[in-house]
Amino acid sequence: MSRNSFGTIFRFTSFGESHGSCVGAVVDGCPANLELDIQAIQEMLDRRRPGFSKHTSARKESDQIEILSGLFEGKTTGAPVAFIIRNQDADSSQYETVKSIFRPGHASYTYLEKYGIFDHRGGGRSSGRETAVRVAVGAIARQIMKETEVKAYLKSAGGVEGNEAILQAIEKAKQEGNSIGGVVEVNIQNVPVGLGDPVYEKLEAKLAYAMLSIPASKGFEIGDGFFSATMKGDEHNDIFIEKEGKIITKTNHAGGVLGGISTGMPLVFRVAFKPTSSIFKPQETLNTDRENITFSLPKTARHDPCIALRAVSVVEAMSYIVLADCYLLNRCSKSNNSIPSPTWML
Amino acid sequence: MSRNSFGTIFRFTSFGESHGSCVGAVVDGCPANLELDIQAIQEMLDRRRPGFSKHTSARKESDQIEILSGLFEGKTTGAPVAFIIRNQDADSSQYETVKSIFRPGHASYTYLEKYGIFDHRGGGRSSGRETAVRVAVGAIARQIMKETEVKAYLKSAGGVEGNEAILQAIEKAKQEGNSIGGVVEVNIQNVPVGLGDPVYEKLEAKLAYAMLSIPASKGFEIGDGFFSATMKGDEHNDIFIEKEGKIITKTNHAGGVLGGISTGMPLVFRVAFKPTSSIFKPQETLNTDRENITFSLPKTARHDPCIALRAVSVVEAMSYIVLADCYLLNRCSKSNNSIPSPTWML
Amino acid sequence: MSRNSFGTIFRFTSFGESHGSCVGAVVDGCPANLELDIQAIQEMLDRRRPGFSKHTSARKESDQIEILSGLFEGKTTGAPVAFIIRNQDADSSQYETVKSIFRPGHASYTYLEKYGIFDHRGGGRSSGRETAVRVAVGAIARQIMKETEVKAYLKSAGGVEGNEAILQAIEKAKQEGNSIGGVVEVNIQNVPVGLGDPVYEKLEAKLAYAMLSIPASKGFEIGDGFFSATMKGDEHNDIFIEKEGKIITKTNHAGGVLGGISTGMPLVFRVAFKPTSSIFKPQETLNTDRENITFSLPKTARHDPCIALRAVSVVEAMSYIVLADCYLLNRCSKSNNSIPSPTWML
Amino acid sequence: MSRNSFGTIFRFTSFGESHGSCVGAVVDGCPANLELDIQAIQEMLDRRRPGFSKHTSARKESDQIEILSGLFEGKTTGAPVAFIIRNQDADSSQYETVKSIFRPGHASYTYLEKYGIFDHRGGGRSSGRETAVRVAVGAIARQIMKETEVKAYLKSAGGVEGNEAILQAIEKAKQEGNSIGGVVEVNIQNVPVGLGDPVYEKLEAKLAYAMLSIPASKGFEIGDGFFSATMKGDEHNDIFIEKEGKIITKTNHAGGVLGGISTGMPLVFRVAFKPTSSIFKPQETLNTDRENITFSLPKTARHDPCIALRAVSVVEAMSYIVLADCYLLNRCSKSNNSIPSPTWML
Repeated sequence: MSRNSFGTIFRFTSFGESHGSCVGAVVDGCPANLELDIQAIQEMLDRRRPGFSKHTSARKESDQIEILSGLFEGKTTGAPVAFIIRNQDADSSQYETVKSIFRPGHASYTYLEKYGIFDHRGGGRSSGRETAVRVAVGAIARQIMKETEVKAYLKSAGGVEGNEAILQAIEKAKQEGNSIGGVVEVNIQNVPVGLGDPVYEKLEAKLAYAMLSIPASKGFEIGDGFFSATMKGDEHNDIFIEKEGKIITKTNHAGGVLGGISTGMPLVFRVAFKPTSSIFKPQETLNTDRENITFSLPKTARHDPCIALRAVSVVEAMSYIVLADCYLLNRCSKSNNSIPSPTWML
Repeated sequence: MSRNSFGTIFRFTSFGESHGSCVGAVVDGCPANLELDIQAIQEMLDRRRPGFSKHTSARKESDQIEILSGLFEGKTTGAPVAFIIRNQDADSSQYETVKSIFRPGHASYTYLEKYGIFDHRGGGRSSGRETAVRVAVGAIARQIMKETEVKAYLKSAGGVEGNEAILQAIEKAKQEGNSIGGVVEVNIQNVPVGLGDPVYEKLEAKLAYAMLSIPASKGFEIGDGFFSATMKGDEHNDIFIEKEGKIITKTNHAGGVLGGISTGMPLVFRVAFKPTSSIFKPQETLNTDRENITFSLPKTARHDPCIALRAVSVVEAMSYIVLADCYLLNRCSKSNNSIPSPTWML
Repeated sequence: MSRNSFGTIFRFTSFGESHGSCVGAVVDGCPANLELDIQAIQEMLDRRRPGFSKHTSARKESDQIEILSGLFEGKTTGAPVAFIIRNQDADSSQYETVKSIFRPGHASYTYLEKYGIFDHRGGGRSSGRETAVRVAVGAIARQIMKETEVKAYLKSAGGVEGNEAILQAIEKAKQEGNSIGGVVEVNIQNVPVGLGDPVYEKLEAKLAYAMLSIPASKGFEIGDGFFSATMKGDEHNDIFIEKEGKIITKTNHAGGVLGGISTGMPLVFRVAFKPTSSIFKPQETLNTDRENITFSLPKTARHDPCIALRAVSVVEAMSYIVLADCYLLNRCSKSNNSIPSPTWML
Repeated sequence: MSRNSFGTIFRFTSFGESHGSCVGAVVDGCPANLELDIQAIQEMLDRRRPGFSKHTSARKESDQIEILSGLFEGKTTGAPVAFIIRNQDADSSQYETVKSIFRPGHASYTYLEKYGIFDHRGGGRSSGRETAVRVAVGAIARQIMKETEVKAYLKSAGGVEGNEAILQAIEKAKQEGNSIGGVVEVNIQNVPVGLGDPVYEKLEAKLAYAMLSIPASKGFEIGDGFFSATMKGDEHNDIFIEKEGKIITKTNHAGGVLGGISTGMPLVFRVAFKPTSSIFKPQETLNTDRENITFSLPKTARHDPCIALRAVSVVEAMSYIVLADCYLLNRCSKSNNSIPSPTWML
């Protein structure tokens, strides 16, 4: 389980399991002299928190961020910013029953094969609890990208669109002890032109990497995405025009990138999430002795009927993280000091 | 345009523009003592080659690989394997007309914004010619993953499925001077269990990153992908069973990964490609003086009516590259020498 | 102050300032299923601790390690191992007087120039306190390299050799409110053959990098080091012989490496440390208003008359860290499963 | 032999063996829009060239650089700059006799142990020929650091100082078929303040890493180096003063760094080189069948009586490479656009 870092210049390394004392991260590469708004971080964490909505897991966590390092008189010093978020409502007892079971859709089987050992308590490192760390880091990244605005929302769930229909579908899944998948759509305004690199480190490749690293995500598409596969060139090509002194495109089929680099148009992409594998319905499976069994999640277990709903703030956070890193990397692209980003940046 | 490397242990760094003398790469981390089959690399290159099919670009390139280093008596020595593929049919003259035009859907605008300079000849570094390098590196990776079999094919194009319908759609686009998008589906057999890392370096995240780095790709989904967003947990969860002494799953909605790690089931994923932006139809756009113009690609220009068809071998190559890197990284995951991969590996 | 990580596969990222709540690190890439002996880590920390010897700084710290993550039933799981060491005796008040002074030999000037901000309390991130983290990580690395034995000692200080003379010199410096430099020599037994890489990542290059990253270090030499510059080829070349079935060299002028790779002979190297810059003697300097002043360290300040003495355990720790990382990297060097390290490893 | 890259933002990856067709590298991260002076690169290569002085190896190579990519109308485009230098005078025949011999001081033993295979022809990848690549890359880095001036010279050889004595010692070693070591001293003027990072990526650590990666180097010291271990704090501390509006230090015992970061004072360091292991004197050793033999290098073999002399230009090149990388990295250290480097940079 090495390889717990994300990013190049703005880079964080996370740690912590669902049922350990805390989760946390070290955020390296945060530029010095940034006045860090801790309250803003806490507000992002509060949005993601379990128990925040009746439609998400019942785990009760206050999710208070504690900054351990990297600040001096409220400002970043260039030193790494480390933080922890304590686990409070971590009741391991109920996981005893699942200890020796390969739960369908869960990581227990692959972890055991890869490492020869698995911390089964609450999914250990594979728990959604790790995403609290991403949200906190994203809230820091957001303060580097002050003018850029990331908005994500649950576009569909269980096959239906529209707030009301979505909430009904989630409620129904909850009552059935089942779960439903969903699609999160993201729209990012005020993206500096020039972020991303042309070949392997394309902006869309980094976004896809970030999004597919979120637990339960199964797909990513940018601009017209999979639909663009059904289109013709003259339909898909975005025409360049000038508007108020800026070069923009008339349409945005590309979703804000050309050749791996941001155009300055809004970044638009979608992320697909599968239905949570933790459900109350009885399921056939194997135990670690390879015996066929029927497994039912204990009725007291926590349950997220639609993990995509929880993922909205995580998708936003990972977006800010990718953009802040690309923004800092881009400072090195030209051979003079005229940094290509607008002056309002930082 | 820094950041031209891909991979961690098995890592290549590429170079070269469409209209320079050659494209090529340095492949670092290829394990020593591997008997390298150059002919097999050449065969992979031949499959990708422009002019190979009447449905792909008319550029005539022999695409002969020349190995510059890293072999001794036919075997890898642990030293980096460098190679070049010369550009033969690089006629820059026809690109003079496009020099000062922001071509719709092209990278010229973003490159100019990012770097302040753009090699317009054939798209320079953004040219599809770079993908020849990926195919050659993939052919090397394939020889590390001897038992693993990657099969990709064009599942749909321009909205239609089935070989015959696809070829008709491509032919039609060609006659119209237009282009169509397409979806490439991949199925990978004999994947070792345990590849990929749990949190940020999930196998599916690395695959998404690799696929979205291919020119013209706009989407990635694994297993049931975007469709899984419409499913319920009890439909999506794959049931573990034992078969011939191996633990497998009854279905494969997950597409071969759980918690970021390969399960040993086939890896199944799809990649969406937009229609090529180079079309013969006249299009409105701006020139670099920000004047509105109508742009028509010269009739003599090369043209790929369906870039997704060309991408099939590139998708296969990037798959082998990701797997070989994950396979070598996985050698470090356990604290004893019992490497988790089957003994037939390497 | 980005770039707070060290290592490739076995990689740690540290955080924390002298006068914050704690210092700590995330250790990534520790192989799974390793029974981690926490007491052994604590013992290494105790050896380095300030106040442990009357010849080192009077700061009183219990330096208790607290593991935050990565263990399950006493074993590593493959997840990152995070830990903190709390700062207890951090009295910032006495540093108020140094706030606006460019102390000779200190990092305050360069930090201010680089970051535009400096946490002056106890040197902030530049404090020797950060080395506690290295010692703890080294104690983990040591448990990966069970059979390898690193021994470091203070070979000379203030120009004299021999325990008794060294202690006298340190005592004298203490009484004078001055400080003295020193040389730490390292001898490492049972080094697996084959560690290190031939060109840029030579074992000696990685050791030099590790050693010159220790605060106050000013030089590194391996084998005969600078003396070898005065030698002839036939004096320096080590003759290969066979002994008890193993290939060894008759002498060890090379210090255990050839072509960047360990030979299996003892690794022998030395690290030079300057005298600590914190002294009680009055010194001329500038303040941040660029006025000439005379600066005297407050008599109550902590003081290490010979930092090289404190550095001994840090040098040992960094040695284990480099070796463990090279050992794990080396698992990827050959194209079959016969890992080149002896079977007793791990 | 993976891990053939050097640097973070300005990063090159090299390839090629002594007796292959060429050596070369891909230079990634060179800022765009830099007018690259190829002739200046060639001049640096000419200085290093074998056969250039009667005191260096007799190998005749024209060492012409051929740029393969990354330039457009004479300027960098941001794309990777790849180049090769062809091997012309590579006569493998004379190496047949050394094929099965563990040559004293040579890498053949460690390569065979690590990789199970060794390209014995001219030392393969371990050959000094690889350093031509470093010199060419250094000449590119120098054009990024236009105002910074690196001067290296052979300070001593075989224990003597002064040009005349050194040349006599080299001549004597040549006549005896023996070799002598030497020390290269470096003095770098006009170093921007703020290069290097405080903890693990200290400027001196990166320089030590770079220097110890040069073949035959055995030691590195900065400022007063090993001598500082004999000094007292009040002797070693450099006093800050103001001169012509700039903050400098009265002395430079530190050698231009404080806390891992450049002070703006000249960087001063030394690198120790062992005597070349290739000598004509007969030496006892083992062959690969572990038989005791006496080995004499064929009289026709090339021979460098003092490799330190050849290393001077390599030391300069690696210095420029480290500085250019640190310079570009430093663009990301502050949270506003006021890049801390003087305006004359780039």
